[in-house]
Amino acid sequence: MNFHYPNGKRYIPKNTDAPQKKSQGKNFAYSNRGMTLEEDLNETNAYYLEQQMAVIHKKPTPVQIVHVDYPKRSAAVIKEAYFKQASTTDYNGVYKGKYIDFEAKETKFATSFPLKNFHEHQIRHMEAVLQHSGICFVIVRFTSLEEVYLLEAGHLLGFWRRMQDGGRKSITKKEVEMFGHRIPIGLHPRIDYLRIIDYLYNLS
Amino acid sequence: MNFHYPNGKRYIPKNTDAPQKKSQGKNFAYSNRGMTLEEDLNETNAYYLEQQMAVIHKKPTPVQIVHVDYPKRSAAVIKEAYFKQASTTDYNGVYKGKYIDFEAKETKFATSFPLKNFHEHQIRHMEAVLQHSGICFVIVRFTSLEEVYLLEAGHLLGFWRRMQDGGRKSITKKEVEMFGHRIPIGLHPRIDYLRIIDYLYNLS
Repeated sequence: MNFHYPNGKRYIPKNTDAPQKKSQGKNFAYSNRGMTLEEDLNETNAYYLEQQMAVIHKKPTPVQIVHVDYPKRSAAVIKEAYFKQASTTDYNGVYKGKYIDFEAKETKFATSFPLKNFHEHQIRHMEAVLQHSGICFVIVRFTSLEEVYLLEAGHLLGFWRRMQDGGRKSITKKEVEMFGHRIPIGLHPRIDYLRIIDYLYNLS
Repeated sequence: MNFHYPNGKRYIPKNTDAPQKKSQGKNFAYSNRGMTLEEDLNETNAYYLEQQMAVIHKKPTPVQIVHVDYPKRSAAVIKEAYFKQASTTDYNGVYKGKYIDFEAKETKFATSFPLKNFHEHQIRHMEAVLQHSGICFVIVRFTSLEEVYLLEAGHLLGFWRRMQDGGRKSITKKEVEMFGHRIPIGLHPRIDYLRIIDYLYNLS
Protein backbone atom coordinates (compact mmCIF):
# COMPACT_ATOMS: atom_id res chain seq x y z
CA MET A 1 0.00 0.00 0.00
CA ASN A 2 1.52 3.29 -1.07
CA PHE A 3 0.09 6.78 -0.84
CA HIS A 4 1.46 10.17 -1.81
CA TYR A 5 2.67 13.41 -0.30
CA PRO A 6 1.01 16.64 -1.47
CA ASN A 7 4.05 16.97 -3.73
CA GLY A 8 3.26 13.57 -5.19
CA LYS A 9 6.27 11.95 -3.57
CA ARG A 10 5.63 8.35 -2.64
CA TYR A 11 5.29 7.67 1.08
CA ILE A 12 7.10 4.59 2.34
CA PRO A 13 6.43 3.33 5.87
CA LYS A 14 9.44 3.59 8.15
CA ASN A 15 9.41 0.42 10.22
CA THR A 16 10.97 -2.50 8.37
CA ASP A 17 8.70 -5.00 10.09
CA ALA A 18 5.56 -3.49 8.57
CA PRO A 19 3.63 -5.83 6.26
CA GLN A 20 4.09 -3.30 3.46
CA LYS A 21 7.78 -4.13 3.48
CA LYS A 22 7.29 -7.85 2.73
CA SER A 23 8.44 -6.99 -0.79
CA GLN A 24 11.88 -6.43 0.70
CA GLY A 25 12.14 -10.04 1.78
CA LYS A 26 10.72 -11.18 -1.54
CA ASN A 27 13.05 -9.18 -3.77
CA PHE A 28 15.96 -9.55 -1.47
CA ALA A 29 17.91 -12.25 -3.28
CA TYR A 30 17.10 -10.81 -6.70
CA SER A 31 17.81 -7.65 -8.62
CA ASN A 32 17.43 -4.17 -7.23
CA ARG A 33 14.28 -3.52 -9.25
CA GLY A 34 11.22 -2.69 -7.18
CA MET A 35 13.29 -1.60 -4.21
CA THR A 36 13.15 2.09 -3.38
CA LEU A 37 16.30 3.95 -2.44
CA GLU A 38 14.88 4.28 1.07
CA GLU A 39 14.36 0.53 1.40
CA ASP A 40 17.89 -0.11 0.19
CA LEU A 41 19.31 2.41 2.66
CA ASN A 42 17.26 1.01 5.54
CA GLU A 43 18.64 -2.43 4.73
CA THR A 44 22.16 -1.00 4.47
CA ASN A 45 21.90 0.85 7.78
CA ALA A 46 20.47 -2.26 9.47
CA TYR A 47 23.50 -4.17 8.12
CA TYR A 48 25.91 -1.51 9.44
CA LEU A 49 24.21 -1.73 12.85
CA GLU A 50 24.30 -5.55 12.95
CA GLN A 51 27.93 -5.59 11.91
CA GLN A 52 28.66 -2.93 14.54
CA MET A 53 30.11 -0.68 11.83
CA ALA A 54 27.96 2.41 12.41
CA VAL A 55 24.78 3.67 14.05
CA ILE A 56 22.83 5.49 11.34
CA HIS A 57 19.03 5.78 11.26
CA LYS A 58 16.40 7.43 9.13
CA LYS A 59 14.41 10.02 11.04
CA PRO A 60 10.67 9.44 11.33
CA THR A 61 8.44 11.25 8.83
CA PRO A 62 7.58 14.62 10.41
CA VAL A 63 3.85 14.76 11.05
CA GLN A 64 1.73 17.58 12.51
CA ILE A 65 -0.74 15.84 14.79
CA VAL A 66 -4.08 17.64 15.10
CA HIS A 67 -6.50 15.15 16.63
CA VAL A 68 -6.05 11.93 18.61
CA ASP A 69 -8.68 9.55 19.97
CA TYR A 70 -8.18 7.51 23.16
CA PRO A 71 -10.40 4.47 22.89
CA LYS A 72 -10.84 2.53 26.16
CA ARG A 73 -8.49 -0.44 26.56
CA SER A 74 -6.68 0.19 23.26
CA ALA A 75 -3.92 2.34 21.85
CA ALA A 76 -4.37 6.02 21.04
CA VAL A 77 -5.43 6.57 17.41
CA ILE A 78 -4.28 9.62 15.48
CA LYS A 79 -7.41 10.70 13.58
CA GLU A 80 -6.12 13.85 11.91
CA ALA A 81 -2.54 14.70 11.03
CA TYR A 82 -0.62 16.27 8.16
CA PHE A 83 2.77 15.72 6.57
CA LYS A 84 5.23 18.43 7.55
CA GLN A 85 8.26 19.57 5.60
CA ALA A 86 11.44 18.24 7.22
CA SER A 87 13.72 20.94 8.65
CA THR A 88 16.75 18.67 8.41
CA THR A 89 18.01 15.82 6.26
CA ASP A 90 16.49 12.34 6.63
CA TYR A 91 19.47 10.31 7.83
CA ASN A 92 22.04 10.85 10.53
CA GLY A 93 24.19 9.00 13.00
CA VAL A 94 27.71 8.18 14.07
CA TYR A 95 30.52 6.34 12.26
CA LYS A 96 34.00 5.92 13.75
CA GLY A 97 33.24 8.79 16.12
CA LYS A 98 32.27 11.10 13.27
CA TYR A 99 28.86 12.70 12.79
CA ILE A 100 27.24 11.48 9.56
CA ASP A 101 24.34 13.38 7.98
CA PHE A 102 22.78 12.83 4.58
CA GLU A 103 19.75 13.09 2.36
CA ALA A 104 18.72 10.48 -0.22
CA LYS A 105 16.94 11.33 -3.46
CA GLU A 106 15.80 9.44 -6.53
CA THR A 107 15.22 10.84 -10.00
CA LYS A 108 13.72 9.27 -13.10
CA PHE A 109 15.73 11.59 -15.32
CA ALA A 110 18.76 10.04 -16.99
CA THR A 111 20.70 13.18 -17.92
CA SER A 112 20.28 15.50 -14.94
CA PHE A 113 19.27 15.72 -11.29
CA PRO A 114 16.73 18.49 -10.54
CA LEU A 115 17.61 20.67 -7.54
CA LYS A 116 13.94 21.08 -6.68
CA ASN A 117 14.40 17.74 -4.91
CA PHE A 118 15.81 19.82 -2.06
CA HIS A 119 14.26 22.67 -0.14
CA GLU A 120 15.87 25.68 1.50
CA HIS A 121 15.65 24.21 5.03
CA GLN A 122 17.66 21.17 4.05
CA ILE A 123 20.30 23.28 2.30
CA ARG A 124 20.66 25.51 5.39
CA HIS A 125 20.91 22.40 7.56
CA MET A 126 23.68 20.96 5.38
CA GLU A 127 25.60 24.25 5.56
CA ALA A 128 25.32 24.19 9.36
CA VAL A 129 26.47 20.56 9.59
CA LEU A 130 29.56 21.32 7.47
CA GLN A 131 30.26 24.38 9.60
CA HIS A 132 30.39 22.10 12.65
CA SER A 133 32.71 19.61 10.93
CA GLY A 134 30.07 16.94 10.37
CA ILE A 135 30.29 14.64 7.35
CA CYS A 136 27.41 15.65 5.09
CA PHE A 137 26.40 14.41 1.64
CA VAL A 138 23.54 13.33 -0.58
CA ILE A 139 22.92 9.92 -2.09
CA VAL A 140 21.38 10.26 -5.54
CA ARG A 141 19.87 7.39 -7.50
CA PHE A 142 19.16 7.64 -11.19
CA THR A 143 16.40 5.03 -11.15
CA SER A 144 16.19 4.57 -14.91
CA LEU A 145 19.93 3.80 -15.01
CA GLU A 146 20.14 1.90 -11.70
CA GLU A 147 23.10 4.14 -10.81
CA VAL A 148 23.71 5.51 -7.32
CA TYR A 149 26.14 8.31 -6.45
CA LEU A 150 27.40 9.94 -3.28
CA LEU A 151 27.79 13.71 -3.72
CA GLU A 152 29.39 15.68 -0.90
CA ALA A 153 27.26 18.51 0.47
CA GLY A 154 29.97 21.05 -0.39
CA HIS A 155 29.45 20.33 -4.09
CA LEU A 156 25.66 20.33 -3.79
CA LEU A 157 25.82 23.75 -2.14
CA GLY A 158 27.91 24.99 -5.05
CA PHE A 159 25.29 23.85 -7.56
CA TRP A 160 22.56 25.36 -5.38
CA ARG A 161 24.35 28.73 -5.44
CA ARG A 162 24.72 28.47 -9.21
CA MET A 163 20.93 28.08 -9.44
CA GLN A 164 20.37 31.07 -7.14
CA ASP A 165 22.73 33.13 -9.28
CA GLY A 166 20.40 32.44 -12.20
CA GLY A 167 22.11 29.29 -13.43
CA ARG A 168 20.53 25.94 -14.30
CA LYS A 169 18.02 24.40 -11.88
CA SER A 170 19.63 20.97 -12.01
CA ILE A 171 22.94 19.16 -11.79
CA THR A 172 23.85 17.47 -15.05
CA LYS A 173 24.55 13.74 -14.96
CA LYS A 174 28.08 14.56 -16.15
CA GLU A 175 28.57 16.84 -13.16
CA VAL A 176 27.30 14.16 -10.79
CA GLU A 177 29.83 11.75 -12.35
CA MET A 178 32.60 14.34 -12.14
CA PHE A 179 32.03 15.62 -8.59
CA GLY A 180 30.27 12.62 -7.07
CA HIS A 181 31.34 9.05 -6.40
CA ARG A 182 29.56 6.04 -7.86
CA ILE A 183 28.37 3.59 -5.20
CA PRO A 184 28.33 0.01 -6.52
CA ILE A 185 25.02 -1.80 -5.83
CA GLY A 186 25.65 -4.85 -3.69
CA LEU A 187 23.51 -7.57 -2.22
CA HIS A 188 24.33 -7.13 1.46
CA PRO A 189 24.70 -4.26 2.11
CA ARG A 190 22.92 -2.94 -0.96
CA ILE A 191 24.43 0.57 -0.97
CA ASP A 192 27.78 0.49 0.81
CA TYR A 193 28.18 4.27 1.06
CA LEU A 194 30.51 4.10 4.09
CA ARG A 195 33.20 2.64 1.84
CA ILE A 196 33.14 5.94 -0.07
CA ILE A 197 33.27 7.87 3.22
CA ASP A 198 36.31 5.82 4.31
CA TYR A 199 38.02 6.76 1.06
CA LEU A 200 37.06 10.46 1.17
CA TYR A 201 37.99 10.97 4.83
CA ASN A 202 40.78 8.38 5.17
CA LEU A 203 38.85 6.56 7.89
CA SER A 204 39.81 3.04 6.93
CA MET B 1 -4.17 21.18 23.35
CA ASN B 2 -2.40 18.18 24.84
CA PHE B 3 -3.23 14.52 24.41
CA HIS B 4 -1.60 11.39 25.76
CA TYR B 5 0.34 8.37 24.62
CA PRO B 6 -0.99 4.93 25.49
CA ASN B 7 1.53 5.09 28.35
CA GLY B 8 -0.06 8.32 29.51
CA LYS B 9 2.97 10.38 28.54
CA ARG B 10 2.01 13.86 27.42
CA TYR B 11 2.35 14.53 23.72
CA ILE B 12 3.90 17.86 22.82
CA PRO B 13 3.81 19.06 19.20
CA LYS B 14 7.25 19.21 17.59
CA ASN B 15 7.24 22.36 15.50
CA THR B 16 8.01 25.43 17.57
CA ASP B 17 5.83 27.65 15.37
CA ALA B 18 2.67 25.73 16.25
CA PRO B 19 0.00 27.79 18.04
CA GLN B 20 0.15 25.30 20.94
CA LYS B 21 3.64 26.62 21.65
CA LYS B 22 2.50 30.23 22.19
CA SER B 23 2.92 29.48 25.89
CA GLN B 24 6.65 29.41 25.21
CA GLY B 25 6.64 33.06 24.23
CA LYS B 26 4.31 33.91 27.11
CA ASN B 27 6.34 32.25 29.86
CA PHE B 28 9.61 33.07 28.26
CA ALA B 29 10.70 35.99 30.44
CA TYR B 30 9.38 34.36 33.58
CA SER B 31 10.08 31.32 35.68
CA ASN B 32 10.47 27.85 34.30
CA ARG B 33 7.11 26.71 35.63
CA GLY B 34 4.72 25.44 33.00
CA MET B 35 7.51 24.73 30.53
CA THR B 36 8.11 21.09 29.75
CA LEU B 37 11.63 19.73 29.52
CA GLU B 38 11.06 19.24 25.80
CA GLU B 39 10.06 22.87 25.31
CA ASP B 40 13.12 24.02 27.23
CA LEU B 41 15.40 21.78 25.18
CA ASN B 42 13.82 22.91 21.90
CA GLU B 43 14.47 26.51 22.93
CA THR B 44 18.02 25.61 23.97
CA ASN B 45 18.75 23.80 20.70
CA ALA B 46 17.28 26.69 18.69
CA TYR B 47 19.61 29.01 20.62
CA TYR B 48 22.62 26.77 19.89
CA LEU B 49 21.67 26.79 16.20
CA GLU B 50 21.18 30.59 16.06
CA GLN B 51 24.48 31.15 17.84
CA GLN B 52 26.14 28.65 15.47
CA MET B 53 27.30 26.62 18.46
CA ALA B 54 25.82 23.25 17.49
CA VAL B 55 23.29 21.54 15.23
CA ILE B 56 21.11 19.42 17.50
CA HIS B 57 17.46 18.55 16.76
CA LYS B 58 14.71 16.51 18.31
CA LYS B 59 13.59 13.67 16.05
CA PRO B 60 9.95 13.69 14.94
CA THR B 61 7.54 11.52 16.93
CA PRO B 62 7.57 8.07 15.27
CA VAL B 63 4.14 7.37 13.83
CA GLN B 64 2.86 4.30 12.00
CA ILE B 65 0.67 5.66 9.20
CA VAL B 66 -2.18 3.38 8.21
CA HIS B 67 -4.58 5.49 6.15
CA VAL B 68 -4.22 8.77 4.25
CA ASP B 69 -6.83 10.74 2.31
CA TYR B 70 -5.96 12.85 -0.73
CA PRO B 71 -8.64 15.51 -1.01
CA LYS B 72 -8.66 17.40 -4.31
CA ARG B 73 -6.77 20.72 -4.26
CA SER B 74 -5.64 20.31 -0.64
CA ALA B 75 -2.96 18.61 1.39
CA ALA B 76 -3.01 14.90 2.14
CA VAL B 77 -4.71 14.13 5.46
CA ILE B 78 -3.54 11.26 7.66
CA LYS B 79 -6.79 9.69 8.86
CA GLU B 80 -5.43 6.74 10.81
CA ALA B 81 -2.05 6.45 12.47
CA TYR B 82 -0.57 5.14 15.71
CA PHE B 83 2.26 6.20 17.96
CA LYS B 84 5.26 3.91 17.62
CA GLN B 85 7.91 3.22 20.21
CA ALA B 86 11.12 5.02 19.30
CA SER B 87 14.04 2.73 18.44
CA THR B 88 16.58 5.42 19.27
CA THR B 89 16.91 8.40 21.60
CA ASP B 90 15.00 11.60 20.86
CA TYR B 91 17.83 14.07 20.29
CA ASN B 92 20.98 13.97 18.22
CA GLY B 93 23.29 16.18 16.21
CA VAL B 94 26.80 17.54 15.91
CA TYR B 95 28.85 19.74 18.24
CA LYS B 96 32.46 20.71 17.53
CA GLY B 97 32.67 17.81 15.10
CA LYS B 98 31.47 15.31 17.71
CA TYR B 99 28.32 13.22 17.48
CA ILE B 100 25.89 14.12 20.27
CA ASP B 101 23.03 11.79 21.22
CA PHE B 102 20.72 12.03 24.20
CA GLU B 103 17.36 11.29 25.73
CA ALA B 104 15.43 13.69 27.99
CA LYS B 105 13.14 12.52 30.79
CA GLU B 106 11.12 14.17 33.52
CA THR B 107 10.03 12.65 36.80
CA LYS B 108 7.67 13.92 39.48
CA PHE B 109 9.49 11.89 42.11
CA ALA B 110 11.82 13.84 44.37
CA THR B 111 13.98 11.02 45.75
CA SER B 112 14.55 8.71 42.79
CA PHE B 113 14.39 8.41 39.01
CA PRO B 114 12.50 5.30 37.79
CA LEU B 115 14.32 3.32 35.08
CA LYS B 116 11.02 2.38 33.45
CA ASN B 117 11.35 5.79 31.78
CA PHE B 118 13.62 3.99 29.31
CA HIS B 119 12.97 0.97 27.17
CA GLU B 120 15.32 -1.74 25.96
CA HIS B 121 15.62 -0.26 22.43
CA GLN B 122 16.92 3.02 23.77
CA ILE B 123 19.41 1.30 26.07
CA ARG B 124 20.73 -0.81 23.16
CA HIS B 125 20.99 2.34 21.06
CA MET B 126 22.99 4.15 23.75
CA GLU B 127 25.37 1.18 24.04
CA ALA B 128 25.90 1.26 20.26
CA VAL B 129 26.51 5.02 20.23
CA LEU B 130 29.15 4.71 22.96
CA GLN B 131 30.74 1.82 21.09
CA HIS B 132 31.17 4.16 18.09
CA SER B 133 32.66 6.95 20.21
CA GLY B 134 29.60 9.16 20.17
CA ILE B 135 28.83 11.42 23.12
CA CYS B 136 25.72 9.95 24.74
CA PHE B 137 23.82 10.98 27.87
CA VAL B 138 20.43 11.58 29.41
CA ILE B 139 19.00 14.84 30.70
CA VAL B 140 16.84 14.21 33.75
CA ARG B 141 14.53 16.78 35.28
CA PHE B 142 13.09 16.38 38.75
CA THR B 143 10.03 18.54 38.08
CA SER B 144 8.98 18.91 41.69
CA LEU B 145 12.46 20.19 42.59
CA GLU B 146 13.07 22.18 39.39
CA GLU B 147 16.44 20.42 39.16
CA VAL B 148 17.98 19.22 35.90
CA TYR B 149 20.92 16.83 35.62
CA LEU B 150 23.06 15.46 32.83
CA LEU B 151 23.92 11.79 33.40
CA GLU B 152 26.37 10.14 31.02
CA ALA B 153 25.02 7.04 29.28
CA GLY B 154 27.82 4.92 30.73
CA HIS B 155 26.44 5.49 34.23
CA LEU B 156 22.84 4.92 33.13
CA LEU B 157 23.87 1.58 31.60
CA GLY B 158 25.44 0.64 34.93
CA PHE B 159 22.20 1.33 36.80
CA TRP B 160 20.27 -0.55 34.10
CA ARG B 161 22.50 -3.60 34.61
CA ARG B 162 21.99 -3.35 38.37
CA MET B 163 18.23 -3.53 37.76
CA GLN B 164 18.63 -6.52 35.44
CA ASP B 165 20.75 -8.26 38.07
CA GLY B 166 17.78 -7.97 40.40
CA GLY B 167 18.69 -4.61 41.95
CA ARG B 168 16.49 -1.55 42.37
CA LYS B 169 14.35 -0.37 39.46
CA SER B 170 15.36 3.25 39.87
CA ILE B 171 18.34 5.55 40.34
CA THR B 172 18.27 7.32 43.70
CA LYS B 173 18.40 11.11 43.68
CA LYS B 174 21.67 10.81 45.63
CA GLU B 175 23.14 8.66 42.84
CA VAL B 176 22.02 11.17 40.21
CA GLU B 177 23.75 13.91 42.21
CA MET B 178 26.85 11.75 42.65
CA PHE B 179 27.26 10.46 39.08
CA GLY B 180 25.43 13.20 37.17
CA HIS B 181 26.08 16.90 36.68
CA ARG B 182 23.59 19.58 37.67
CA ILE B 183 22.65 21.86 34.79
CA PRO B 184 21.80 25.36 36.01
CA ILE B 185 18.49 26.66 34.61
CA GLY B 186 19.09 29.81 32.59
CA LEU B 187 16.95 32.21 30.67
CA HIS B 188 18.57 31.94 27.25
CA PRO B 189 19.48 29.18 26.74
CA ARG B 190 17.32 27.55 29.38
CA ILE B 191 19.29 24.32 29.78
CA ASP B 192 22.89 24.91 28.73
CA TYR B 193 23.90 21.26 28.64
CA LEU B 194 26.75 21.83 26.19
CA ARG B 195 28.66 23.64 28.93
CA ILE B 196 28.70 20.33 30.84
CA ILE B 197 29.81 18.50 27.68
CA ASP B 198 32.67 21.00 27.23
CA TYR B 199 33.76 20.27 30.79
CA LEU B 200 33.43 16.48 30.52
CA TYR B 201 35.19 16.18 27.16
CA ASN B 202 37.55 19.15 27.39
CA LEU B 203 36.00 20.70 24.29
CA SER B 204 36.18 24.33 25.38
